[in-house]
Amino acid sequence: MKNNITSALVVIGNEILSGRTQDKNIHFIAEELGKLGMPLLEVRVIPDIEEKIVSTINEIRRSFTYIFTTGGIGPTHDDITSVAVAKAFGVKLIRNKEAMKMLQSHYTGNDLNEARLKMADIPEGASLIDNPVSKAPGFIIENVYVMAGVPIIMQAMFDSIRNSLKGGQPVISMTVSTDLTEGMFATDLMAIQKKHTEVEIGSYPFIKHGKLGVSLVSRGTDKKAINNVCEEIKNLIKIKGGRILESQG
Amino acid sequence: MKNNITSALVVIGNEILSGRTQDKNIHFIAEELGKLGMPLLEVRVIPDIEEKIVSTINEIRRSFTYIFTTGGIGPTHDDITSVAVAKAFGVKLIRNKEAMKMLQSHYTGNDLNEARLKMADIPEGASLIDNPVSKAPGFIIENVYVMAGVPIIMQAMFDSIRNSLKGGQPVISMTVSTDLTEGMFATDLMAIQKKHTEVEIGSYPFIKHGKLGVSLVSRGTDKKAINNVCEEIKNLIKIKGGRILESQG
Repeated sequence: MKNNITSALVVIGNEILSGRTQDKNIHFIAEELGKLGMPLLEVRVIPDIEEKIVSTINEIRRSFTYIFTTGGIGPTHDDITSVAVAKAFGVKLIRNKEAMKMLQSHYTGNDLNEARLKMADIPEGASLIDNPVSKAPGFIIENVYVMAGVPIIMQAMFDSIRNSLKGGQPVISMTVSTDLTEGMFATDLMAIQKKHTEVEIGSYPFIKHGKLGVSLVSRGTDKKAINNVCEEIKNLIKIKGGRILESQG
Repeated sequence: MKNNITSALVVIGNEILSGRTQDKNIHFIAEELGKLGMPLLEVRVIPDIEEKIVSTINEIRRSFTYIFTTGGIGPTHDDITSVAVAKAFGVKLIRNKEAMKMLQSHYTGNDLNEARLKMADIPEGASLIDNPVSKAPGFIIENVYVMAGVPIIMQAMFDSIRNSLKGGQPVISMTVSTDLTEGMFATDLMAIQKKHTEVEIGSYPFIKHGKLGVSLVSRGTDKKAINNVCEEIKNLIKIKGGRILESQG
């Protein structure tokens, strides 16, 4: 499977690394980017440490078409993503007038205090990402898309930018599951993979209600090729005496 | 919070990056490593691509005390972690006699076919990690711990090695939650953080039943210092007119 347009995600937040919070953003973003034809090829989860954010952004931003980040753009002391991203690009962090207006539409009088105004500090030259949930915006600088960490806010931000993202061909996948175990067909499956290099075949064992099984996932951009691979996989399962538990596109 | 013993995790698997599977290993490993006093400081999720596995392992293995990996040690064509880790260390992949015995205890006669025997191919010089669920072992080479990707198997492998991991002081955490929003106390919270540098205070907004709130998490290795910080946070919440929704150690 070849795709010229690629993405990476940087999850910024001690709460994931400490095990306090089960991350939900990777799964959502991965699925959406696949549909948009800009598959996610790497994720990094890093702490709220400025130099780590700067070095991570600079290490990866030229290796992928798009970089997305989640987390660290709120009003508290541990929200340091905006200042770190500004440093990564060597630009100033400035109070953004448009972002100010967004916050003013939400907070009145004394409620718009200095801590909240911090959320209007955006790297110079960046454009804003709308936040329909709680107003404080995300932003885009070059190919880096900076979003909130709270899943409901991140998803609303993603909805705001979805139409502006230019992907390649959507990645589609089909799954065939069986009650066989991997070792019973691995050699023949490799032969199918070698024959169809345009389709990526993944083999994922599972244990459900104490019983072993495998999901065989065929992914790519060519639906017909994927269909052909799935038919060959189903044949293989039958030859090996297995049952097809599930088959879905 | 200072901890001299640190960890990183490499999640190897297209199924996480494609959005097919919601990762559960990060959360489990993060929590366990915190308890063991060897906090997780970085996670990388990467695809089943040999050169990517090799480069990732070599980029990070000297930066952390322990490296853990999950995924890619089964019998199918997309299981390439063992060969990649061997390359990263510049050693041969050899059929390990002890691993052979483990497989022979599980598979009899023709069932122990060439695909399954692949699971006994281990980098030269590595020691094995016991797999009580499905026998095929993980392995340890220098500071890199290679485990299965299926959560139930990974967790069983982690249980096998837990006692051999030498951590520092356990990381403990206490959470105080409130119905205030971050912007209402952010400046004062920063003052508390600046006064207590040995405790790491994280501020995590949430939306529950349509209502905003914040969890304030104090983490560190000094229980007394954490208690003091939590008392100051509770006072701050009261002064700002908020309710304490939850307080747990």
